[in-house]
Amino acid sequence: MAARADGETVVEASLLHAAQAEVAAGIDALFDRRLAIPSDPRERLYRAMRHAATGGGKRLRPLLVRAAGDLFHVDRALSLRVGAAVEAMHVYSLIHDDLPCMDDDDVRRGKPTVHRAYDEATAVLAGDSLHALAFEWLVDPATHADPFVRSELVRELALAAGPAGMAGGQMMDLAAETVSFDLPTVTRLQQLKTGALIGFSVEAGAILARVPPEGRKPLRAYARDIGLAFQIADDILDVEGDEALAGKALNKDAAAGKQTFVTLMGIDRARAQASLLVDQATAHLAGFGDEARLLREIAHYIVERDR
Amino acid sequence: MAARADGETVVEASLLHAAQAEVAAGIDALFDRRLAIPSDPRERLYRAMRHAATGGGKRLRPLLVRAAGDLFHVDRALSLRVGAAVEAMHVYSLIHDDLPCMDDDDVRRGKPTVHRAYDEATAVLAGDSLHALAFEWLVDPATHADPFVRSELVRELALAAGPAGMAGGQMMDLAAETVSFDLPTVTRLQQLKTGALIGFSVEAGAILARVPPEGRKPLRAYARDIGLAFQIADDILDVEGDEALAGKALNKDAAAGKQTFVTLMGIDRARAQASLLVDQATAHLAGFGDEARLLREIAHYIVERDR
Repeated sequence: MAARADGETVVEASLLHAAQAEVAAGIDALFDRRLAIPSDPRERLYRAMRHAATGGGKRLRPLLVRAAGDLFHVDRALSLRVGAAVEAMHVYSLIHDDLPCMDDDDVRRGKPTVHRAYDEATAVLAGDSLHALAFEWLVDPATHADPFVRSELVRELALAAGPAGMAGGQMMDLAAETVSFDLPTVTRLQQLKTGALIGFSVEAGAILARVPPEGRKPLRAYARDIGLAFQIADDILDVEGDEALAGKALNKDAAAGKQTFVTLMGIDRARAQASLLVDQATAHLAGFGDEARLLREIAHYIVERDR
Repeated sequence: MAARADGETVVEASLLHAAQAEVAAGIDALFDRRLAIPSDPRERLYRAMRHAATGGGKRLRPLLVRAAGDLFHVDRALSLRVGAAVEAMHVYSLIHDDLPCMDDDDVRRGKPTVHRAYDEATAVLAGDSLHALAFEWLVDPATHADPFVRSELVRELALAAGPAGMAGGQMMDLAAETVSFDLPTVTRLQQLKTGALIGFSVEAGAILARVPPEGRKPLRAYARDIGLAFQIADDILDVEGDEALAGKALNKDAAAGKQTFVTLMGIDRARAQASLLVDQATAHLAGFGDEARLLREIAHYIVERDR
């Protein structure tokens, strides 16, 4: 990675990589323990959940919980638990999005999708199960001793996942196959579909530290900007990326006739916009010192990643 | 309704009917307000949720929350809110269970199923949305001022809905199409598939009143017995019931080659067992006085209903 305008270099890259590796290992260990396979007819359900949830993915959302929690010296074991909940929610959404009646995808994270490896009914139930588990894990007293914090986390995650968040964005995405959306509508779609859960991940770090809503404003602004930058980068990768690295089918949006940031802005403007959003995101962190290094690094990673 | 051995007559039937009508109207009003249709591309999602959630169903689960809450003088506006959450969870499960890859049903509550009235993708997302909304509504500060109570409710509902509850039972039910289960396994299947959410509904009334787990034991025992009686009655109705009254296709289990309480016990023994369970359920309420009349009445209704 080359030196950048802000003078950050390889040093932070290794901070990011170390944190990402640690979070990924922690998430896999938690999933492994919590998704222990029962010896009864539910065995297939647990195998399907493990297939989707373990050993893959960038673990971006748990990484964001950890990075935001670090700002307020949150115990990393706690931010990892919240990270596992948000990752379970994310994985459930991937399983359902991949279904034949939705995006009809065969490959995800370099493996067959759940309905291909198992069957559609199992995929529906594995998604439903991870959806419920996300809330069960979040509200476990071990996640936070203060029930107010637990209930705040549940509230924010439910809002981010439901029809005013991820599920609503997915519905707009279905409509995008038949209606041609303009840039403000695509922006809103993506704020719901991917932005809401990214926003939760960042805000959760502050909620764990009992930071009141006013104090979370810079983090919400950071999350809004990186969420959008993430999706623009995704649209660019959908056109220019490598399927083997991505571990999923690419060029699907164009084939479905959907408007994306790339079709609406052109690839050069899209790239410039993503870069601008990263600068804006890190500017929102100006009130923080070195403890925000990981969040800054993640913002850059989000647009520079190759998968 | 004829006089019964325990001497309860028409008087309680009208108590039950009045409570059921009041709860049904309250649930419809809450759903109507909370599922207001937005004027954006998510309109179809909200219409699909309203199609499934409003104007139908026995509202048994919200009725149980109200009846259990009445034991401890819980504000009925609060038990109605919790009832709306558990009903949203129940409706989501019906939408997903009816999908072509699951039970492939065309009619539910006398109307076309969601995937028939809309499409499969919308049905998946309408179910997912109601699943998230159940938790969002439960954890709303208006549901209970004490965050500990809210987080307890979320924990119990997540356990009842997830792979150790409803979703796990549904997975066993899929397996029942290819493996012939014995009576203990069918009992366990039904305890997860329908019993867990019925158990939550009853226990929620006590949680709202901050009754500690030890104090909820007779209610848990009552719920276990009526949950099983409910499923035996369902299996009997599946054979003897009227499709027009039921508002859904009947005789499906036999056609799918699944073992049920009726196939395993014969209809006479199944009927006797259901009746025994109702007696047992009401016996668990012996420590309560007249304030448990509605719960007793519900236990009888569960096996005497014609839909």
